[in-house]
Amino acid sequence: MRARRFDASAPVPRLDRIDTVAVEEPLQIRVEHGPREDRRRENVAVTMRTPGDDFDLVLGHLVTEGLLLDPQAVAGMMHCTDVGPDGAPTFNVVDVALRDGLSLDARPRNRPEIMTSACGVCGVDEIAAISAVSPYAIRTDRVRLDPDVLAALPDAIRERQKGFERTGGMHAAAIATADGEILAVREDVGRHNAADKVIGWAAREGRLPLTGHILVVSARASFDLVQKAVMAGLPALVAVSAPTSLAVDLAEEQGLTLVAFTRAPRCTAYSHADRVVNS
Amino acid sequence: MRARRFDASAPVPRLDRIDTVAVEEPLQIRVEHGPREDRRRENVAVTMRTPGDDFDLVLGHLVTEGLLLDPQAVAGMMHCTDVGPDGAPTFNVVDVALRDGLSLDARPRNRPEIMTSACGVCGVDEIAAISAVSPYAIRTDRVRLDPDVLAALPDAIRERQKGFERTGGMHAAAIATADGEILAVREDVGRHNAADKVIGWAAREGRLPLTGHILVVSARASFDLVQKAVMAGLPALVAVSAPTSLAVDLAEEQGLTLVAFTRAPRCTAYSHADRVVNS
Repeated sequence: MRARRFDASAPVPRLDRIDTVAVEEPLQIRVEHGPREDRRRENVAVTMRTPGDDFDLVLGHLVTEGLLLDPQAVAGMMHCTDVGPDGAPTFNVVDVALRDGLSLDARPRNRPEIMTSACGVCGVDEIAAISAVSPYAIRTDRVRLDPDVLAALPDAIRERQKGFERTGGMHAAAIATADGEILAVREDVGRHNAADKVIGWAAREGRLPLTGHILVVSARASFDLVQKAVMAGLPALVAVSAPTSLAVDLAEEQGLTLVAFTRAPRCTAYSHADRVVNS
Repeated sequence: MRARRFDASAPVPRLDRIDTVAVEEPLQIRVEHGPREDRRRENVAVTMRTPGDDFDLVLGHLVTEGLLLDPQAVAGMMHCTDVGPDGAPTFNVVDVALRDGLSLDARPRNRPEIMTSACGVCGVDEIAAISAVSPYAIRTDRVRLDPDVLAALPDAIRERQKGFERTGGMHAAAIATADGEILAVREDVGRHNAADKVIGWAAREGRLPLTGHILVVSARASFDLVQKAVMAGLPALVAVSAPTSLAVDLAEEQGLTLVAFTRAPRCTAYSHADRVVNS
């Protein structure tokens, strides 16, 4: 992308150059489901995302929003090759087909316009209905988390954030073991999409619930990220930046260990801190 | 909020203490409108926001989403004092009444679940319908922007970001003149809410369209922030962090000067760079 850089301290204070920016494009998710005699296709969501790992994003979104409890119910997914203004396919619609006779576990929440600070809870009719109910009990997860291991996680995923290096504008999410091994990293302009992508990866690999594992995000910890972690059975969320009050409240209530302001050698636990113990 | 800090390098490596975190609570926006004989109340949005400046947030949201083109149409706003689990009012619903006979200029977009990377465009039935149409033509705005003035804006608003200092988890948005004077600053856990709050302030002051002014955000520049600026008649958006591809595309198309990676003495213009000239 063409850009003009101004720098009063540079030998050339005005410089036209080519910049790489984070790609943001809409993705529409449609699901075909229901019994054979009443098969229907529904619009489930439109998300502004960075193209790539779209199937993981879609599967993760269905799971973390409580729309589909069993990832095995998916028979197939395909890009509907919509055509853009230039006549080329846009790859901005994904069609999901559920197995014959199977339906979504919840209705895509029809409602007026909804927004969130990170947008993962887009879609409630009433304030009281804001959180989905997880099929997994994480409160009883007895994983032990070493604070030194937690504090080292952001640097470990940063090394694998190729998009951020190029654009400075992408978030990352990762699934790690309690020993600090990074199993998968995904990037996106939206932190909730990055989380959905990496949880979708785990769903596709048959790894749900993610008992004993950690969701790591290169972002602040807001309400919707806690919700996504809980819906995937994750007992811990480690965020690089600040938490919000509602994130802490939900984590406390649901039994999730919420760790934030994570920069080696420091981190701070805001809920269920008893799991964090030096080994 | 109680928190447990771990720091392997500190004399006390584990320390229980009280932390201040950014408050995130849902706000429901309801609008009563229509002719006297067919008066109706509609749910327009639920947004996860930091309480404070709620009326500015609501007014700004109605304007930047294209729901209400003339802020003067608002007869009044009040908090509906819902009661929380503890029996205390929550102040998490705002009721807007339009003047008799006046209606919203657009339908709150009913649709399936919608998400965005920054969430300001939560709500489209079709990808093609993603951007609202501004009543203002900003392409013809001949404001001249001095790169040194632009580069200094983030530090100027940082001095006025009280919430960020306390919590490390809040975004800020400001309206500035082309001379670099900061007219108003608002904070929120969500950058789109911070932008709505400060644009709502301007709407309440009768300052729309904001011809010749600048929207400054302590965040990345995503699609929805460009849209909000355009809907308020702002010819320039200055972001501290990275832009996204769709933000640049929309800014180019709509005639907005998008400046990003703004840290004194540097900034980079991604669209309509001709307005940026040393004075």
